[in-house]
Amino acid sequence: MTASSPMGISRPQVKSLDEILPREPLLMMGAGPVPIPECVAKANSVVINHLGGAMAQVIHQVKAMARYVFQTESKWVLGVAGPASAAMEMAVSNLMQQGETILCVNNGFFSHRMAEMATRIGADVHELHVPVLEAADPELVRKAIEKVRPKVLTLVQGETSNTVFNHSLEEIAKIAKSYGCLVVVDAVCTLSTMPLKMDEWQIDVVITGGQKGLSSIPGVSLLVFSDDAWATVKSRTQPVAQWCFDAQLAENFWHKDGYHYTAPVSGIMALHEALKLVCDETLEQRFARHLRCSKALQAGVQGMGLNLFIPAESRLNSVVGITIPEGLTASDICRHISDVYRVEIAGSFGQPIVRIGQMGEQCREHNLFRTLHALGSTMRDLGVKVDQPNGMAEMESYLQSVPRIISQVA
Amino acid sequence: MTASSPMGISRPQVKSLDEILPREPLLMMGAGPVPIPECVAKANSVVINHLGGAMAQVIHQVKAMARYVFQTESKWVLGVAGPASAAMEMAVSNLMQQGETILCVNNGFFSHRMAEMATRIGADVHELHVPVLEAADPELVRKAIEKVRPKVLTLVQGETSNTVFNHSLEEIAKIAKSYGCLVVVDAVCTLSTMPLKMDEWQIDVVITGGQKGLSSIPGVSLLVFSDDAWATVKSRTQPVAQWCFDAQLAENFWHKDGYHYTAPVSGIMALHEALKLVCDETLEQRFARHLRCSKALQAGVQGMGLNLFIPAESRLNSVVGITIPEGLTASDICRHISDVYRVEIAGSFGQPIVRIGQMGEQCREHNLFRTLHALGSTMRDLGVKVDQPNGMAEMESYLQSVPRIISQVA
Repeated sequence: MTASSPMGISRPQVKSLDEILPREPLLMMGAGPVPIPECVAKANSVVINHLGGAMAQVIHQVKAMARYVFQTESKWVLGVAGPASAAMEMAVSNLMQQGETILCVNNGFFSHRMAEMATRIGADVHELHVPVLEAADPELVRKAIEKVRPKVLTLVQGETSNTVFNHSLEEIAKIAKSYGCLVVVDAVCTLSTMPLKMDEWQIDVVITGGQKGLSSIPGVSLLVFSDDAWATVKSRTQPVAQWCFDAQLAENFWHKDGYHYTAPVSGIMALHEALKLVCDETLEQRFARHLRCSKALQAGVQGMGLNLFIPAESRLNSVVGITIPEGLTASDICRHISDVYRVEIAGSFGQPIVRIGQMGEQCREHNLFRTLHALGSTMRDLGVKVDQPNGMAEMESYLQSVPRIISQVA
Repeated sequence: MTASSPMGISRPQVKSLDEILPREPLLMMGAGPVPIPECVAKANSVVINHLGGAMAQVIHQVKAMARYVFQTESKWVLGVAGPASAAMEMAVSNLMQQGETILCVNNGFFSHRMAEMATRIGADVHELHVPVLEAADPELVRKAIEKVRPKVLTLVQGETSNTVFNHSLEEIAKIAKSYGCLVVVDAVCTLSTMPLKMDEWQIDVVITGGQKGLSSIPGVSLLVFSDDAWATVKSRTQPVAQWCFDAQLAENFWHKDGYHYTAPVSGIMALHEALKLVCDETLEQRFARHLRCSKALQAGVQGMGLNLFIPAESRLNSVVGITIPEGLTASDICRHISDVYRVEIAGSFGQPIVRIGQMGEQCREHNLFRTLHALGSTMRDLGVKVDQPNGMAEMESYLQSVPRIISQVA
């Protein structure tokens, strides 16, 4: 493991990346990261000065494109060097001060995360637990708001861990707003895969990551504050505990061509290209593509005799949860489909499901057929009776029933 | 600026990256980011599953190589999705609890940053201000330690903002250790450019970024905790305010093949390749290359009649500070050298200097000649009398006086 060296600590012998990475890349059909387009990969190899004129132009365009993708006219688009969790932490830690009340609608693992973050900064944290197979109920949220009178309400559009879709997001946001709450929405796995109208729905902060619907790299994330949310940030009396996530320091870089920390230059280039692809495709066409592909996949899965975990009315399309057949575990299935068919899908966090992503580049017909074939074959290999030909036929029928939209190339 | 759309917020018209980026890249000779090698750029385009077996192997190797580069046998190597400041914040926020005492040796802008971070989490913060042209004095540090009895001492190896080198780092670390302090060293602009022996010098935490000496991308950073530091992290009674930077959550990913947040996959691939280049070159050869190139550049700058800002004994080699001739500003110089000669150098934070980086890929003879020519020509263009031929001759003479080391290729 080590080579001799005149220094104290000797050099390790390591394998090259080529030896570690499979010769043919595995198809990433899990809950993210997702495959990235060639132009995003290429942009991610570019490093330039983080404070020069070219960077300023890139940042200006990233903000302009983000406003379209988030459907907002708000000025307060901010990027953050880090995962989507960093954007979550930025939202929570800048809006909340010690002792203030926050209500977190908890649909599962990820929607609990903002409650956890709020606890750490000394907020008075309340959680409304939603039963696992259900979407959040607006009237129950209203009751909880009336009870705890929170300054901030947090809510997930789609809970990645159990594949629940909070289809009443708009109604809940408007209820919360009528009580004077600031509404923070985690759209990490949903942004650009389904409608979200930040301004029209009266949402105060929307959070997303790079490596989901946007099909960019993990490590650079985006969030937008409304004017109300930004006024709250500006008027706080306690310093933000998180130096890196202090929105007013981030403003220096994202809005004043100034310095906060060395920005993740290459990741911002990648994000620029990913956002440009969304703009070129248009949101309307992108939403239609996601819906068509996800519904076709769901038809195929059910057509071969497997069950979808979440009832149709609260089912998320961007991550599809499939109930694990009796006698198997998620890791049995994930290992086999990866080893034998070179397709990666995901297990879950505490639920008896495997998950297939339908975000960004995952939503392409050729990926659907390869994935459904791999999933059905894996089930058969592992002794589960499935009708794979019928699954394929159902998926194809669904695709035929909904016309494919030919994307404009701008 | 916008195209019509049936959605609420319309699409912006944006330029392509090709239109924004200069056709020939500017040579980045500032204080970072620095140019990245081709293999690092290539690795940065790879996205794989952040939780699979391939990623686990990459992480294992990154830790092994980091131990060599940091010169430590400590197990507790951690990466962080974010800038070097995120690694700083991780160190401070995990070691310190509210009300505990920290002493920050302040050599300038960057060494003040950890004091700022400590203040935000409610620590009792003391700063020892070092005069701007000087290195920290071990006896003054001892006196300050005796006075405030800190739990943690923070110190920078090289202060990027004013180009001071704390040449007594080893002595100071050992003094602090003898008083029972945990010693945190910011080696952001110095790691892999000059000796730093974490274990032998009794340092408890060493912090670095990607985009300086390592010549990787900005956005993924590294730090190492000693066993003492790690025991402190494990025994804390208050939760860490920073969820993303909680070292014990990071341990899940970096040491237990588990989940914290979606790791910055491509940036970790890039870091793997950058660390491998350091291992292949060996630290001894890398240090020699940096010293030789930096000293040659300094000889050239002085040879043409410009002044170096910091006296020789406390002068940092990895970032060279040049006093701005009377009548000019840093932005005059930086703009001209960039616009006309396509070389980028940096201004400073409050000091009357421009700065040229000598980190990683910046330390190549061809970059030195191009940069010195560009700097001298810029000075002449702006009306400053310099003897450029003599500068070139002095630089060449220095290079001739120190044999070039031909790197082994492993």
